Amino acid sequence: MTGAGEADFIARLRALATHPAARGLLDDAAVLGDMVLTHDMIVEGVHYLADDSPADVAWKLVAVNLSDLAAKGATPLGVLMGYGLSGEPDWDARFVEGLGEALRQFDVTLLGGDTVRLPAHAPRCFGMTAIGRAPRDGAPSRDGAKPGDQLWVTGSIGDAGIGLAMRRDGAKGLETHRAAYARPLPQLAFGQSVAPLVHAMMDISDGLLIDATRMATASQCRLNIAMEAVPLSQATLTVRRDELAPRMAAATAGDDYQLLFAADPGMAARIREIGDRLGVAVSQIGAVGEGTGLALSHCGDAVAMPDRLGFMH
Amino acid sequence: MTGAGEADFIARLRALATHPAARGLLDDAAVLGDMVLTHDMIVEGVHYLADDSPADVAWKLVAVNLSDLAAKGATPLGVLMGYGLSGEPDWDARFVEGLGEALRQFDVTLLGGDTVRLPAHAPRCFGMTAIGRAPRDGAPSRDGAKPGDQLWVTGSIGDAGIGLAMRRDGAKGLETHRAAYARPLPQLAFGQSVAPLVHAMMDISDGLLIDATRMATASQCRLNIAMEAVPLSQATLTVRRDELAPRMAAATAGDDYQLLFAADPGMAARIREIGDRLGVAVSQIGAVGEGTGLALSHCGDAVAMPDRLGFMH
Repeated sequence: MTGAGEADFIARLRALATHPAARGLLDDAAVLGDMVLTHDMIVEGVHYLADDSPADVAWKLVAVNLSDLAAKGATPLGVLMGYGLSGEPDWDARFVEGLGEALRQFDVTLLGGDTVRLPAHAPRCFGMTAIGRAPRDGAPSRDGAKPGDQLWVTGSIGDAGIGLAMRRDGAKGLETHRAAYARPLPQLAFGQSVAPLVHAMMDISDGLLIDATRMATASQCRLNIAMEAVPLSQATLTVRRDELAPRMAAATAGDDYQLLFAADPGMAARIREIGDRLGVAVSQIGAVGEGTGLALSHCGDAVAMPDRLGFMH
Repeated sequence: MTGAGEADFIARLRALATHPAARGLLDDAAVLGDMVLTHDMIVEGVHYLADDSPADVAWKLVAVNLSDLAAKGATPLGVLMGYGLSGEPDWDARFVEGLGEALRQFDVTLLGGDTVRLPAHAPRCFGMTAIGRAPRDGAPSRDGAKPGDQLWVTGSIGDAGIGLAMRRDGAKGLETHRAAYARPLPQLAFGQSVAPLVHAMMDISDGLLIDATRMATASQCRLNIAMEAVPLSQATLTVRRDELAPRMAAATAGDDYQLLFAADPGMAARIREIGDRLGVAVSQIGAVGEGTGLALSHCGDAVAMPDRLGFMH
């Protein structure tokens, strides 16, 4: 599918999504009264490797959905799952084991769903809807960033991208990278705590630069990102020299499931306190200005935008 | 996939669905506070024919989900959709047209969802989650039928099954059958009105006999069904002689999206009034007794259960 075809399709869908709760299909989730609702699909060979562990696939299905709730500061209430039976009962059983591990980890319950047969040799596909309770003062959107805001991210960026590359190459690699790809951890507690302090928040799922572009577009601002401030893990600094190239690779890799948010500079101390309290690294990676799109710099020098900003699917 | 494999899978899932809102995964929908939530998937070649009209596929995706809400007496609030892009933009555009028609017909809004790329040559698959408001006095379950209750269905049974057979045979057939297969109409208004009067209610999606068996199991009762009372449409009576065989065919065909419900005999007049007011046919097809499973009769004579009770998927 071409990007243009998908963009056209989504434009047609947006014409049907006129209710304010849909947020124009431009946010991580719908916000209906005090409920936050999100739905993601994952497909074999598109969103995960065919030989990934079934338990890891289940974990990812849960984590990608809960990450959308985290971005809205929501408290998860439950999930519904659409499951395409693989025709391999052992695979399915191992999937359920991983599903149980993820639901217990994030204290979420399975509310319902549907189990269907897939035609022979069809790639597996799964859907999940997650339901959460919105923060009392409302769920932050992507569209509220204001000129003068500071731009922040949680955690480290690019670990899952290295983990995926190692899986593809059959390399053993480092546990940090393997775990970031196989067992992402949505930032639920941090999202809930920081939601009242931010002007805009979203999760980073397709790559920092592509997701930041979406926030810039929704907020009608320019996001200025200092590439040297993009946080890399110790593991990444071990395998890659600390210069621009690995940060650019990190900023265009997918599957981070960290949070990107914009907040008034006066909130900085409280944001750092929340990070300290919860053991979540927070990094200021730039600032919001007038204009549109992204502007990248490295140690004060302007940097051209790469051709590929992240994962298109 | 064997039925045994699916049953084993669902048993494993049930162990994760311990929250009361999940209703043990044994009901049409989850009931979380005053919200009713349901999720269905449809897959090309399993739930619809590969050459079905894209607009009809979209309509069916909406209708099957709203039928689950109808069975709980819920008022639809919105839907989230998971969409696998077909690689054929024209097909996708026609799907959105049908989606819009269905959403307008049932006064439901698109709240959100996910659009994903499918691998080349993969069968199309779609998921939808529908969210509704539960009736004030609670959403009826499948498990409340009591000995002494009357057993009812809405509408006519088996039309969609004939419509599907005609599509498969390339026959033109009758409009009633074509429409029942292509454009099912979930009984939302009737479900909302009758919900306070029933002991148990569910929708008929896989076939009257298989779904009635599920109600019998959930309610720990025996459902006695008088086959001569199973309502056939005028169209069906035109093409099939009015004896047992066509009623058995109708009762084991899928895609009816009518409601099956059990209520105290004292409610019969009010149930008929609701049907008259809404223009929905209601038929008493039997009664609930002590025991388990189904017992079929035809004009007073016991009838053996057929080998195949409905659509297994």
